Amino acid sequence: MTSAGIHAAGTAGGSYVALCGGVGGAKLALGLANVLPADKLSIIVNTGDDFEHLGLHVSPDIDTVLYTLAGLSNAEQGWGLAGETWNFMGALERLGGPTWFRLGDQDLATHIERTERLKRGDTLTAVTDHLRRKLGIAPAILPMTDDPVATFVTTDAGRLPFQSYFVAQQCRPRVTSIEFQGAAAAKPTPAALSALARPDLAGLIICPSNPWLSVDPMLAIPSWRKALSELHVPRVAVTPIIGGRAIKGPTAKIMSEFGLDVSAASIAAHYRGLIDGFMLDESDAAQSADLGLPAMAAPTIMRTLDDRIRLARATIAFCRSLSGSRLVSKGTT
Amino acid sequence: MTSAGIHAAGTAGGSYVALCGGVGGAKLALGLANVLPADKLSIIVNTGDDFEHLGLHVSPDIDTVLYTLAGLSNAEQGWGLAGETWNFMGALERLGGPTWFRLGDQDLATHIERTERLKRGDTLTAVTDHLRRKLGIAPAILPMTDDPVATFVTTDAGRLPFQSYFVAQQCRPRVTSIEFQGAAAAKPTPAALSALARPDLAGLIICPSNPWLSVDPMLAIPSWRKALSELHVPRVAVTPIIGGRAIKGPTAKIMSEFGLDVSAASIAAHYRGLIDGFMLDESDAAQSADLGLPAMAAPTIMRTLDDRIRLARATIAFCRSLSGSRLVSKGTT
Repeated sequence: MTSAGIHAAGTAGGSYVALCGGVGGAKLALGLANVLPADKLSIIVNTGDDFEHLGLHVSPDIDTVLYTLAGLSNAEQGWGLAGETWNFMGALERLGGPTWFRLGDQDLATHIERTERLKRGDTLTAVTDHLRRKLGIAPAILPMTDDPVATFVTTDAGRLPFQSYFVAQQCRPRVTSIEFQGAAAAKPTPAALSALARPDLAGLIICPSNPWLSVDPMLAIPSWRKALSELHVPRVAVTPIIGGRAIKGPTAKIMSEFGLDVSAASIAAHYRGLIDGFMLDESDAAQSADLGLPAMAAPTIMRTLDDRIRLARATIAFCRSLSGSRLVSKGTT
Repeated sequence: MTSAGIHAAGTAGGSYVALCGGVGGAKLALGLANVLPADKLSIIVNTGDDFEHLGLHVSPDIDTVLYTLAGLSNAEQGWGLAGETWNFMGALERLGGPTWFRLGDQDLATHIERTERLKRGDTLTAVTDHLRRKLGIAPAILPMTDDPVATFVTTDAGRLPFQSYFVAQQCRPRVTSIEFQGAAAAKPTPAALSALARPDLAGLIICPSNPWLSVDPMLAIPSWRKALSELHVPRVAVTPIIGGRAIKGPTAKIMSEFGLDVSAASIAAHYRGLIDGFMLDESDAAQSADLGLPAMAAPTIMRTLDDRIRLARATIAFCRSLSGSRLVSKGTT
């Protein structure tokens, strides 16, 4: 690892693609949106968490990214909208409707508008783009696919649809395996492939989302994995594990259940062959030698907008520092 | 007209069926619910206003009756729920969704729960009964049919679906005709027919709803009209016209557009053959001789719950007063 090369390699003005899931990933996506010109950033979002609830198409990760980039998210809660109200849920409860998945009054508008547009025949990509524009968000936000992919978690409490595991059971069951129904037949969207095929593409950033639940749904789509593995620009993953713990969510728990060491090294190993560099937390800097690939250490805990911007800058700089060496290694093989 | 017979004829303990539309009708339905034992009242409600909006099955008249009988209605506004909030609508507007038909946050729960249950295969009757129970309402509330019937209004602004005329255009276009799509093929529900077939049935009450928009959808269903015309108990309509004006809504306007005199007499004439008595407002008592059928005059303006209860009592008393004469007239023909 060097910090000398950070500001060296050029590619200034290049475009970036970020892959992300929900909360943790969206934080870095917001940082990137603040650092890069709008037309130089495409955020490709996991849709494996999508599900139909109350007849509505709910896309939790897309919504988290939309709300976060629109400055509307509830930062304390970690999901949903700031200033949200719950009068719909209260009334639904009175009528005996299901209340395990909480939809706020304003959030509901997103799901209803999305569902209506999907029913009309719009793609999820087109709908997401409409919502993005209406919310005043500049960078492209792209679903990983317009095809149905549904995450199922096999646990000691049975095989559960993702939201049953994640929300209803609050990740309590012990996970033995995860599958992504529909992934084998799903395709990346033309919009997402175009973002990857841009001549000015300067880097791919895997945001600090849960690799098993938020990034793997994408990697389970064969043409996605192929496209990422063939990419000729630096690909960098940012760790979701800091000091042997996850900031949020079940990442660490699942790693333990899979018998993995809860460490940045395990995350780097998970992405082996798909990344060229790994961004670990400054507190884990000592591990950088064990990763088996170029690493950079930086403060990765994102409490404030400044934290997000700082990490975005560091990640872009890391990509730039790798672009020279990557081209060299490509040249020699 | 006599007031002597009011408390004369027996049938105490008999059951009643009320036909009603939205606001005006629901007021009398509430009065009846306060006067009659729960198992002696069935309220059959217009579904001609039902429509799909934002992918949801909205039943405006059923909801008005449900909310009114549950004590949850917004009395000032005349529709919807008291203490309603509009955060969903605000968010939907931000996303570019349609806002001409306003759905409150709590109201939305009714439509979502209804739509979900209909999708599962429940009948509208079963769904309405579920909502009724959840809202703690005792008397039966029955859709006029479980089949689709849709009111269309032909106007100088074209042929409009009911809600476009009623809500979006606020009844401004001049009406030339009204049709009830699906009525010819629609059937009364077993539940509604059972209510009419009860051996203890003592009367049928047509609430002071708009005859053309709220009661005619029911009368346009052939077996409904037949069932009502063959009924062997007193059938009484309560006027929605008082002193040549309607309390609310487009009744008077439509009557003018149809070239009808805006009077209680025109309403009575509209129901000819289907009613045995007509309840007009005390201020129109002088017209009772012109109606061509037994009439009673009473205060029909329902501002308070007491007003509703008083009119319900008067209407039931009127039915009872007619039961003797009706039987006699049946006996002599």
